[in-house]
Amino acid sequence: MPQPVLKKIVVFGVGLIGGSFALALRRAEAVGEVVGFGRSTATLEQAQQLGIIDRIGADVAAEVRDADIVLLATPVGQMAELMARIAPHLGSHTLVTDGGSTKGDVVAAVRANMCDKVAQFVPAHPIAGAEKSGAAAAMADLYVGKKVVLTPLPENSTESVVRIRRAWELCGAVVSELTAEQHDAVFAAVSHLPHLLSFALVHDLAQRDDRDLLLSFAASGFRDFTRIAASSPEMWRDICLANRDALLDELGRYQQELETLHVALAEADADKLEQVFSEARKVRSNWRAE
Amino acid sequence: MPQPVLKKIVVFGVGLIGGSFALALRRAEAVGEVVGFGRSTATLEQAQQLGIIDRIGADVAAEVRDADIVLLATPVGQMAELMARIAPHLGSHTLVTDGGSTKGDVVAAVRANMCDKVAQFVPAHPIAGAEKSGAAAAMADLYVGKKVVLTPLPENSTESVVRIRRAWELCGAVVSELTAEQHDAVFAAVSHLPHLLSFALVHDLAQRDDRDLLLSFAASGFRDFTRIAASSPEMWRDICLANRDALLDELGRYQQELETLHVALAEADADKLEQVFSEARKVRSNWRAE
Repeated sequence: MPQPVLKKIVVFGVGLIGGSFALALRRAEAVGEVVGFGRSTATLEQAQQLGIIDRIGADVAAEVRDADIVLLATPVGQMAELMARIAPHLGSHTLVTDGGSTKGDVVAAVRANMCDKVAQFVPAHPIAGAEKSGAAAAMADLYVGKKVVLTPLPENSTESVVRIRRAWELCGAVVSELTAEQHDAVFAAVSHLPHLLSFALVHDLAQRDDRDLLLSFAASGFRDFTRIAASSPEMWRDICLANRDALLDELGRYQQELETLHVALAEADADKLEQVFSEARKVRSNWRAE
Repeated sequence: MPQPVLKKIVVFGVGLIGGSFALALRRAEAVGEVVGFGRSTATLEQAQQLGIIDRIGADVAAEVRDADIVLLATPVGQMAELMARIAPHLGSHTLVTDGGSTKGDVVAAVRANMCDKVAQFVPAHPIAGAEKSGAAAAMADLYVGKKVVLTPLPENSTESVVRIRRAWELCGAVVSELTAEQHDAVFAAVSHLPHLLSFALVHDLAQRDDRDLLLSFAASGFRDFTRIAASSPEMWRDICLANRDALLDELGRYQQELETLHVALAEADADKLEQVFSEARKVRSNWRAE
């Protein structure tokens, strides 16, 4: 029997992101042992029954000492505290990565809480959103063909980045690298702003006395445009605040775009409207979704 | 053999909307003869080969004289001219309906061009958008379970409205009635504004030097939000202009909503953001799409 690439991993948060990471590495026969931590004993027991983790961890200090990789797959808001707890006990070989969907705030937390272990933290964002959450939603193939963005720190050694890249690749992911600033600017534009706009449209309708009449005539265009308005309010509140500066830039830009369209429409400027719609259609038609 | 409900219908524009109307009535064994008119001989011949129409019409005056129903299924911009051509020749029993997705402009064209036959025109909007168009896209079941909105005129007799309602119901549609003003306000909110917003987002990205980088990280949320930005620029230019007043109202309202969110975000007002997102999510989650 060949040795697995990773003798042991420790996962904080055994839901969709963390549970799928563990299942994927197991399926690839790339991990010897998976230890899980989390705030809910019921979820941890469920994860153990589902074969996501081998053991429920009891002693953080002891478990992270000999782990190859520690994954922080909790909400970003809980990561700072976890970093402070694990940093003093990390083995010299142990690397830490995360599954947070914003990166500037994670990097700030790393610098504030990882003490002299900053170099051992390689931040990551797996782009594998799904409507479901929780351990029961975890899937061994969640990351197959999906993008994972690493935002390495200047302190990370090349070898550390390669090891984290390799772990995500073993899950089937396509890994790329951006700076944390690039990452947050990109996702403000293509993910965070669309979510905000979709929430705003439905909220606008929700305020009205005739909303039931309006919604009764909404069809497939509305359905697709507003699908993301059914996302978790708490999660998106946190993402918007975590990526506030980049999102404010994008929102301001979009408000100018709408003002331009408002003027074109008020002036019945058919050429301008057609030009905007045509350029949008061309780009959207040529874009290939994941 | 029982007599069909409709001895003869005449369809102007034998594409998705008109062709599907004819095929649906045929499948219901509700029509004796279907005559087609259109600007493209090739399309008319294709429609005949596909069994959508029995004959290609040659003489408008002669064909509309003894028709039970005339359907105008051309772009709305071509309807005024057609109304002026058919009005002098309509039989006293003949009713006219249309498939236009805006109604205030169709009603204005009816009043300007139908002369003393205004009472014989019952405006309709079948809510059955599809990505495809043309005769080859026509389907007998396009309207099954779909909504059709009639916007009857004060001049229409109850019997005329009932006959047009019955024809759409024979196609499988669920028919409701609004005034033209109500119709245009409703669709500005739930269809026209979302299209404008989706075009605007993609256009905003399309202008940028780094658009390829941005689009390479766009995922399923972006995909759904922007699906309607691949719609026909010409068609949506015309719809926006045809429903300009109602759409300007909706756009202005939405711009205020965005400004409120901009302020909340700038002030890091977590409660306000969560409240807006929660109300939107609640309404969206309870909404059932067609």
